[in-house]
Amino acid sequence: MNPQNGYDIEDISVGMSAETAKTISEADILLFTAVSTDTNAVHLDEEYGKTTMFGGRIAHGMLSASLLSAVLGTRLPGPGVIYLAQSLRFKAPVRIGDTVHAKVTVKEVVVGKARVVLDTVCTVGGKVVIDGEATVMATSRAKRESGK
Amino acid sequence: MNPQNGYDIEDISVGMSAETAKTISEADILLFTAVSTDTNAVHLDEEYGKTTMFGGRIAHGMLSASLLSAVLGTRLPGPGVIYLAQSLRFKAPVRIGDTVHAKVTVKEVVVGKARVVLDTVCTVGGKVVIDGEATVMATSRAKRESGK
Repeated sequence: MNPQNGYDIEDISVGMSAETAKTISEADILLFTAVSTDTNAVHLDEEYGKTTMFGGRIAHGMLSASLLSAVLGTRLPGPGVIYLAQSLRFKAPVRIGDTVHAKVTVKEVVVGKARVVLDTVCTVGGKVVIDGEATVMATSRAKRESGK
Repeated sequence: MNPQNGYDIEDISVGMSAETAKTISEADILLFTAVSTDTNAVHLDEEYGKTTMFGGRIAHGMLSASLLSAVLGTRLPGPGVIYLAQSLRFKAPVRIGDTVHAKVTVKEVVVGKARVVLDTVCTVGGKVVIDGEATVMATSRAKRESGK
């Protein structure tokens, strides 16, 4: 582990996983709208939402995706990590009251480059709502101890 | 255009583009932290941030990425769009006070499937901080008028 309690690249192996979960509230949607400026009616207007294929308001896809960033930045690898890339496929909508489980699983470790590739998935009630892949750079004990 | 003032697939051609911009404030970072649960110190602790390669606090990468979602959901294609996929490469940090410009440019249109692929890029002062690609489904005038 590094001094910030994140995993060093030397601590990480294929198959390790971490997760978090959050119940999405109306307040989350309002705050995310303020931050993102994404005022699409499908997120804010219940009457309009009812006329869509979703049958009501849905959360911003990036709101659920941000939970993946949280797992990477706070759990695995955790503090010290640098986010390099993320792919996201939005598979199903998330509604107010849904509890989103965000899970990351290590699928590849390149120790020399301190590079980690992780499967990233968000589920609601066991159903996949987002899948994709993250690439991050972890801290390195070898590099730290060599003073570079 | 559809009744929500979004572009139908029939209105979209390769090369069309749209953008938005937002100055990232400390409040954005605090709100994004609340929504995402991403409490990584590099976003919240200026003293810790100063010890990192970034030299200070940086915004969450997904916060800047959310501006791309805003352009897609409110401008091009705009209301009625369904977000299918997004890839993101985080190229450089965004700091408090930076103005992030998020731009999307149509690179492929598949009318039959109402599918649009767009280049998506965020810049600060002309420098790319995020690049990637979005895939969305637009509304279809033909489908709407056929009543299907």
